[in-house]
Amino acid sequence: MRTTIHLIGIGTGNPEHLTLQGIRALNAADVVFALDKGEAKSGLNAVRRTICERYRERPGLRFVEAPDPERDRRPDDYGVAVDDWHAARAGLYEDLIATHLGEGEQGAFLVWGDPALYDSTLRILDRVRARGRLDFDVSVVPGITSVQALAAGHRIPLHRIGEPVRITTGRRLREAGGIDGATVVMLDGDPRFEGLAPDLAIYWGAYLGTPDELLLSGRLGDVADEIRRLRREARARHGWIMDIYLLMPPEA
Amino acid sequence: MRTTIHLIGIGTGNPEHLTLQGIRALNAADVVFALDKGEAKSGLNAVRRTICERYRERPGLRFVEAPDPERDRRPDDYGVAVDDWHAARAGLYEDLIATHLGEGEQGAFLVWGDPALYDSTLRILDRVRARGRLDFDVSVVPGITSVQALAAGHRIPLHRIGEPVRITTGRRLREAGGIDGATVVMLDGDPRFEGLAPDLAIYWGAYLGTPDELLLSGRLGDVADEIRRLRREARARHGWIMDIYLLMPPEA
Ligand SMILES: C[S@@+](CC[C@H](N)C(=O)[O-])C[C@H]1O[C@@H](n2cnc3c(N)ncnc32)[C@H](O)[C@@H]1O
Ligand SMILES: C[S@@+](CC[C@H](N)C(=O)[O-])C[C@H]1O[C@@H](n2cnc3c(N)ncnc32)[C@H](O)[C@@H]1O
Repeated sequence: MRTTIHLIGIGTGNPEHLTLQGIRALNAADVVFALDKGEAKSGLNAVRRTICERYRERPGLRFVEAPDPERDRRPDDYGVAVDDWHAARAGLYEDLIATHLGEGEQGAFLVWGDPALYDSTLRILDRVRARGRLDFDVSVVPGITSVQALAAGHRIPLHRIGEPVRITTGRRLREAGGIDGATVVMLDGDPRFEGLAPDLAIYWGAYLGTPDELLLSGRLGDVADEIRRLRREARARHGWIMDIYLLMPPEA
Repeated sequence: MRTTIHLIGIGTGNPEHLTLQGIRALNAADVVFALDKGEAKSGLNAVRRTICERYRERPGLRFVEAPDPERDRRPDDYGVAVDDWHAARAGLYEDLIATHLGEGEQGAFLVWGDPALYDSTLRILDRVRARGRLDFDVSVVPGITSVQALAAGHRIPLHRIGEPVRITTGRRLREAGGIDGATVVMLDGDPRFEGLAPDLAIYWGAYLGTPDELLLSGRLGDVADEIRRLRREARARHGWIMDIYLLMPPEA
């Protein structure tokens, strides 16, 4: 049997976001790799631990924890910084796999949300393989994304009937200077909603799927300040925040 | 207790796409409403039945099946046709709920994929409430979408690092005449890839999550004809097809 690495999407905070396919992969694994991305504070690793305790049905799971390489959070050149960071992580992942995974064993990464959306694990494992030292199969188990947790929390579709929806980042939204149709914004460390029409509808959510879930929606011009205030207060209280929002043009 | 209707996202063909939250809602339900959308052939209802048989843990679940109102598939005015059809379904759903769900009971719809993406159940239940005859709570359980099943099948992210991704329909893609960045196309009954640059990468998938899953990827100019051929053959063999594809601009 070939060595296999499972990327298991675990959803975004509610351990019950896990799928049955995810439980199956978790139970096939010999080793779970847990990278400490300084997420300790953020409660992400607590969810991962809960998932292993609740849904691992057979004994013998090995945990391998390692600190994640430092990342330059305010780089001059975003592309180069990400590339350096991915290269550093590829070296680390290669070592972890080589050291802890025997021939034919199965490893797992518990990926927040879905592995296909703003997560680097897939790209880094591709790099590890490209380095040529290790050979293994990768298997991807889809997981509930924060986009879906947002829509479920507000009980709304992500788009108008038959229309498109875009998923983007705070950085790209600022660069674009506006939206073109329904748009979900992730990874926005400081939402200012600048240059956006006040008549847009906004659906905002933080800590989705967790007991601390916050939801707020309304006309952007009416609720933007309240969202910024709620966000500031929650972030101060928890020491961290993860939030996401959908902007929707008014009905034509 | 108030009457509650659960919209349970069940994923896209693999019964193990179901989440633990979905199992919990299924077990809370007194009634499952199954609408025959002429999907009989498509195997969708078979997956729903499998899910109920495998994951319903307590007895006493009532099944209510009803034929779905006819839908005009080639309307002159798409918006009006959808509106008429939603109105007809709202009437039907109202009757079903009024007839089969007692005060304080819980009902469930098993929604293909995720309820927030190109599915009308949420909008129709909103209409039922707007009619004012019935009052109930709606609860949404997110499910794995075909977008995620596509990405997992190909083991790829949906976008380049830090860039946006758009989700659209075959109809809108034709209207737009091209793409603006990574684009997932759903609901394309006859993909011709007209007017698209041959240098785009395409990741195509059909029957995702099922034992009949098909995957093909490559440079659009090289694989477009093969995808169309595969699609035609598979559709003839199965009598139906559900497929989706991601178009990705070449690396800058
Ligand atoms: C690095 S991305 C990871 C996305 C993840 N792979 C997914 O599928 O949702 C982190 C961003 O996801 C969003 N996010 C993740 N979990 C969230 C949660 N529980 N509540 C709100 N937003 C969340 C936030 O926008 C955050 O900045
Ligand atoms: C009415 S939409 C429903 C989408 C669903 N709510 C979701 O979350 O994926 C139907 C479209 O979804 C896509 N689709 C759904 N299931 C699929 C599957 N198993 N394989 C490929 N495409 C699928 C196809 O593009 C199809 O035309």
